[in-house]
Amino acid sequence: MKQMHRLFEVDPWKVSTHTLDKKERRLQESLTSLGNGYMGMRGNFEEAYSGDHHQGSYLAGVWYPDKTRVGWWKNGYPDYFGKVINSVNYIAMDISINGQAVDLYAVEPEDFYLELDMKTGILSRRFTITQGGATVRFTFERFLSIVQKEMAMIHLSAEVLMGTAEITVVSKLDGNVQNEDSNYEEHFWEPKGASSLELFSYLSTQTIPNAFGIEQFSVTSAMRHKCHCNQDYVRTVSTETHPLVVEESFLFKLKENDSFELTKQVLVLTSRDVPEASQVTELTSLFGKLTLDYAPHRDAQIKAWATRWELADVVIEGDPEAQQGIRFNLFQLFATYYGEDERLNIGPKGFTGEKYGGATYWDTEAYAVPLYLALADPSVTENLLTYRHNQLPQAQHNARQQGLNGALYPMVTFTGVECHNEWEITFEEIHRNGAIAYAIYNYTNYTGDSSYLKEKGLEVLTEIARFWADRVHYSKRAQKYMIHGVTGPNEYENNINNNWYTNTIAAWVLRYTRESYLKYQNKTSLTIDEAELTKWQEIVENMYYPMDQELGLFVQHDTFLDKDLMPVSELNLEELPLNQHWSWDKILRSCFIKQADVLQGIYFFGDQYTLEEKRKNFEFYEPMTVHESSLSPSIHAILAAELGLEEKAMEMYQRTARLDLDNYNNDTEDGLHITSMTGSWLAIVQGFAQMKTDNEALSFAPFLPTNWQAYAFHINYRGRLLLITVNTQSVSLELVTGAPLDVTLYDQKISLTDKTTLPLRKKVK
Amino acid sequence: MKQMHRLFEVDPWKVSTHTLDKKERRLQESLTSLGNGYMGMRGNFEEAYSGDHHQGSYLAGVWYPDKTRVGWWKNGYPDYFGKVINSVNYIAMDISINGQAVDLYAVEPEDFYLELDMKTGILSRRFTITQGGATVRFTFERFLSIVQKEMAMIHLSAEVLMGTAEITVVSKLDGNVQNEDSNYEEHFWEPKGASSLELFSYLSTQTIPNAFGIEQFSVTSAMRHKCHCNQDYVRTVSTETHPLVVEESFLFKLKENDSFELTKQVLVLTSRDVPEASQVTELTSLFGKLTLDYAPHRDAQIKAWATRWELADVVIEGDPEAQQGIRFNLFQLFATYYGEDERLNIGPKGFTGEKYGGATYWDTEAYAVPLYLALADPSVTENLLTYRHNQLPQAQHNARQQGLNGALYPMVTFTGVECHNEWEITFEEIHRNGAIAYAIYNYTNYTGDSSYLKEKGLEVLTEIARFWADRVHYSKRAQKYMIHGVTGPNEYENNINNNWYTNTIAAWVLRYTRESYLKYQNKTSLTIDEAELTKWQEIVENMYYPMDQELGLFVQHDTFLDKDLMPVSELNLEELPLNQHWSWDKILRSCFIKQADVLQGIYFFGDQYTLEEKRKNFEFYEPMTVHESSLSPSIHAILAAELGLEEKAMEMYQRTARLDLDNYNNDTEDGLHITSMTGSWLAIVQGFAQMKTDNEALSFAPFLPTNWQAYAFHINYRGRLLLITVNTQSVSLELVTGAPLDVTLYDQKISLTDKTTLPLRKKVK
Repeated sequence: MKQMHRLFEVDPWKVSTHTLDKKERRLQESLTSLGNGYMGMRGNFEEAYSGDHHQGSYLAGVWYPDKTRVGWWKNGYPDYFGKVINSVNYIAMDISINGQAVDLYAVEPEDFYLELDMKTGILSRRFTITQGGATVRFTFERFLSIVQKEMAMIHLSAEVLMGTAEITVVSKLDGNVQNEDSNYEEHFWEPKGASSLELFSYLSTQTIPNAFGIEQFSVTSAMRHKCHCNQDYVRTVSTETHPLVVEESFLFKLKENDSFELTKQVLVLTSRDVPEASQVTELTSLFGKLTLDYAPHRDAQIKAWATRWELADVVIEGDPEAQQGIRFNLFQLFATYYGEDERLNIGPKGFTGEKYGGATYWDTEAYAVPLYLALADPSVTENLLTYRHNQLPQAQHNARQQGLNGALYPMVTFTGVECHNEWEITFEEIHRNGAIAYAIYNYTNYTGDSSYLKEKGLEVLTEIARFWADRVHYSKRAQKYMIHGVTGPNEYENNINNNWYTNTIAAWVLRYTRESYLKYQNKTSLTIDEAELTKWQEIVENMYYPMDQELGLFVQHDTFLDKDLMPVSELNLEELPLNQHWSWDKILRSCFIKQADVLQGIYFFGDQYTLEEKRKNFEFYEPMTVHESSLSPSIHAILAAELGLEEKAMEMYQRTARLDLDNYNNDTEDGLHITSMTGSWLAIVQGFAQMKTDNEALSFAPFLPTNWQAYAFHINYRGRLLLITVNTQSVSLELVTGAPLDVTLYDQKISLTDKTTLPLRKKVK
Repeated sequence: MKQMHRLFEVDPWKVSTHTLDKKERRLQESLTSLGNGYMGMRGNFEEAYSGDHHQGSYLAGVWYPDKTRVGWWKNGYPDYFGKVINSVNYIAMDISINGQAVDLYAVEPEDFYLELDMKTGILSRRFTITQGGATVRFTFERFLSIVQKEMAMIHLSAEVLMGTAEITVVSKLDGNVQNEDSNYEEHFWEPKGASSLELFSYLSTQTIPNAFGIEQFSVTSAMRHKCHCNQDYVRTVSTETHPLVVEESFLFKLKENDSFELTKQVLVLTSRDVPEASQVTELTSLFGKLTLDYAPHRDAQIKAWATRWELADVVIEGDPEAQQGIRFNLFQLFATYYGEDERLNIGPKGFTGEKYGGATYWDTEAYAVPLYLALADPSVTENLLTYRHNQLPQAQHNARQQGLNGALYPMVTFTGVECHNEWEITFEEIHRNGAIAYAIYNYTNYTGDSSYLKEKGLEVLTEIARFWADRVHYSKRAQKYMIHGVTGPNEYENNINNNWYTNTIAAWVLRYTRESYLKYQNKTSLTIDEAELTKWQEIVENMYYPMDQELGLFVQHDTFLDKDLMPVSELNLEELPLNQHWSWDKILRSCFIKQADVLQGIYFFGDQYTLEEKRKNFEFYEPMTVHESSLSPSIHAILAAELGLEEKAMEMYQRTARLDLDNYNNDTEDGLHITSMTGSWLAIVQGFAQMKTDNEALSFAPFLPTNWQAYAFHINYRGRLLLITVNTQSVSLELVTGAPLDVTLYDQKISLTDKTTLPLRKKVK
């Protein structure tokens, strides 16, 4: 495997470093991103930085339809690619000492320290700098409030250690920002007004018009400041420097040992919540209710995160790297999405970068739903499902674009309309449609509540089923239904025929939809005629699945076994990651697998396969898997754990848990892999602890990784809160709240009323 | 099949119309293009035209590397796409009558007539227009000289039929032109100087700098005029209106029945032939040698084209549509390339449009070489082969880009470096490499001259063979060599495995190269070691070919027979052409074939397959073929003829011969399909007349299409000129010049010394 690249120190609760790595500033920025579900930003510095970096602040649900750019147009390509857009930079505070700009790229700081405290969501930084004849120590703190989502707090303090210093701080709302990946180098924002009122300054901006009928978003950001200084200082307000920039300047004239503190309070409103015309009024009202003091907001923030951690934390004893990894993942995941706004979903980079665009991938349904089911109220997952139900008309449009019936959920979208523009993905990676259906099953099975299924789920399922029924074709030669021309979860093969995973999930959708309809047909307004149900059943019964009886394999697709098969271990390390070293054709015709494909199917439908089938397929595919998708290691960890391959499970856990912290795929500089951050949790809960929920029955069969002393986590399950603790000797299940519950631990059925402890089994078989 | 769309009248020698079709101006322009191998242009009007049209003039070998634009970058993509660039518009003559611009889009002309005379290469136009109180008749003629390649002549005459008219003619060299398909909307030209000397005016321009180390081309165009008028007139010279435009204005004050004539003589030099610094001097010298009178140049042009036609013309009696079609094709082909400059090749759109870019596709080797072998001196084909030999280092570079040995000739190029940027084409449509090798065989076999093979051909063959030997892989399961991940000639399937055509031509290259090396190893400086030769032989002997014994088929690729197979006749006409109506994925998974694929292989290696094999494959594949590549119908015509399917052969002939004239594929507005223009000639000569040259033996087995009275054509063959005449009763072979020759006619061996006539056979079996 590729060597990891670690910038930050290992610490159970902190991501911290004493090194300003100017060559890896982008990577540092990604790893110190902050978010509160409503807005977020990369770990940019407040003051100007002239070295290579990526300035990025983002607002949830605020996007722009960037006109499609391709080399060669193919029929069916979408008109635009919806992009998360770089929005007003409200942390900006340019600083100068005696007329010289403070720029950590230009001048080497002393005592540099940067820290993201995952327990509290507070990012802090300090350094000492000598320039213009003075030595000054600066300390920054900032956070995005999870108590008042529209609010960001920035706190700066400075002390003159030597010499005298005129320190200027120009605090800004800077809307003059651009997406790095803008297709036609457009700026996506235009000014709508700016002013400095008595209480605060504000900047109103609006996304530029577009040709696709997508709403223009307007955003008003506002700031006010509080100063503390042992000397007099001068405050100047200017809105004239640029139509997209508002500034307030502070001039401090300090002698040795003098110091000041400056608190910047920012509020950001968008037209998603407040109409443009009311934004300034609403800001006035909000500022009126909020104190400008830093400390109380900071205390509230700490308390709010503590509440989140109380439920979600996974405690690992004996392995600080593993501990840091899962906390980093949970922190960044909750910073992106905590289920508060049903109009939102979980974008692949969250608020940490621009690559990929879109707000929704199938990642949400496949990888995030299981975590939110366990760590949040069921309404959060229901919101995620409802998001798709709301986009059903657009999914129908996508199917029509391909000349097909039913609904095709998009690869990438904001509105439900497909945005992606590679034919092998847009048109062919259609297995995504199955994951949307699977999440409906998963929710219903986990919660035991069929109301969503009956009310909305069946509509979605039926339209997805209709898509599959039209997308298959009947091969007269084989007398089977087949699905040609797809890209499976392994995106390192394109335009393949009869991808086992795709065929499996397509048939499953048809079967589950039919069964659900027959079960609830008297409780739904939906009508599916007999002929259609019969057709579905015929497809289910006659679906073709590539298999190799001799090898005992589900074959990834028709001709996979004809490839030049070899394990990843035969490759040179320098060739990894393949996607950065091999030309695309070489990747495609190689046997190397980007992420779980057959194994993804075995994971989803684990109760349908024998342990022997799982073992044969795992042993065949895993050695050829390069895990160059962030979504890969977690599934492998779970299956390895089930097969008792504890070392492999641990290797995969490390890779998913520390994917970004150790930059395994050499691409974290573009942003964090948010949607795969559930992976480490899945690896521990569904892997190490072997939590299963198939057929509405809860079970565990934990093992403890070598070198770990213990691990413990909570889950919500059908109104109960459970605590699972695994140590070197025993496994205990504790019913923290809720009614008694039947649980299976190893092969023992338990009626859990309080706490049950069993000895730890040494090897899972 | 899709309905044809015919703009021009049927005439054996002319492309003419009395209708100005303002909705189809682009199509009219394409079809009235002119060229002389050195330069060319679309059938634009001399005067300004404000309606939708595409102004385009092009200079052979003058291009620009336009930075690659793609939606998603893949490793291995080229840096730039080489484009034929729109160059100085030297025909421009803006006209006004009493201050009102003559613009045929704005004012409806009377008596409009437009004519391209294919016999002479002269484009003429006349119309009468009433505006500004006068009625004036205008007549234009122009041609690009094939006697003096740098020269264009334009002749305008005007007569006032009613009223009095001040007519202004502003004659221009207009370098302010842009490519319609510029990736980043750049202008590719910058000014280098302009002046009006006593003898002529000139404009020097240069292509803008580029980041890829490609030379900048400089071009100087110059014009002088001759006037004939029964009244005085005023001539004004201006070079000031635009740095890229030079103008000379003429003002004629005319009464009723007055008239004038204006001859514009243009010379264009490029840095490909004359260094920038010498261009003006060289122009002065050239103008000094040339008369400015229109008539002598016109006569010379007529004579020169007559010489070309003497050899090349195919005379068809009884079918004027067919006659017009083949002459149009031959005319446009020779207007593009007549073998005079070994640095040039045959671009897919010639001088008639901008789509596709590049100067060279595999079309040259596969479709053009057979025609030039028969209709030109062998040195012309040798030039085409040498062009590839010169680009061997670049072809090696292309192979390295994919991590492979040997040489990969590009899909699209100017320099030999690949320019195309779709992975399924760039990286996968590698069968092109086989066609480059095939042309070496074809040349050697046709001419009987192995000197090229020994000197340069073997070097090219060896490197292509090395590419194939590295590109195959060994399937342990099948114990065969396979080629995965290709696009065959049928571009309506991508990333397929074991394309029968590709596997066939790859193995053929390895065999032919090995055999040629063993034959000539003592006569070449090349050394190939025994191990490599053995390896090649092993691949040849163990190559996998998808076959279906039961159906007697060579299978297009591994899983083709699993498709939902149906004939094109089951489709709705409105769905054709598929590429304009279906989404790409639907096209890919359908059974419909863009162009000959298995049949292309059967055509190339016709002597290796039985008539029964040919019939079974033709009958299987042809009904599923939509012929949406311009390269498809000719191959089908040839095979249909061989199989005695005379009606099908004729249908295919019509489609290739009148592809552009009848706009079958609804895309001729973008330019003519130059490289497929050999198709009608191939259909008649290799199809209807069944000329074969396999194994160095010449044979014919002609049939006469129903409704044709006769057809006749010449061919060059090994120093002889032969005339073949087929009429309703007989076939005659005449040795026009050269030594006696053994020829097979039907199954009769003939020692041809003078002329032999045999009765026509009614059906080929």
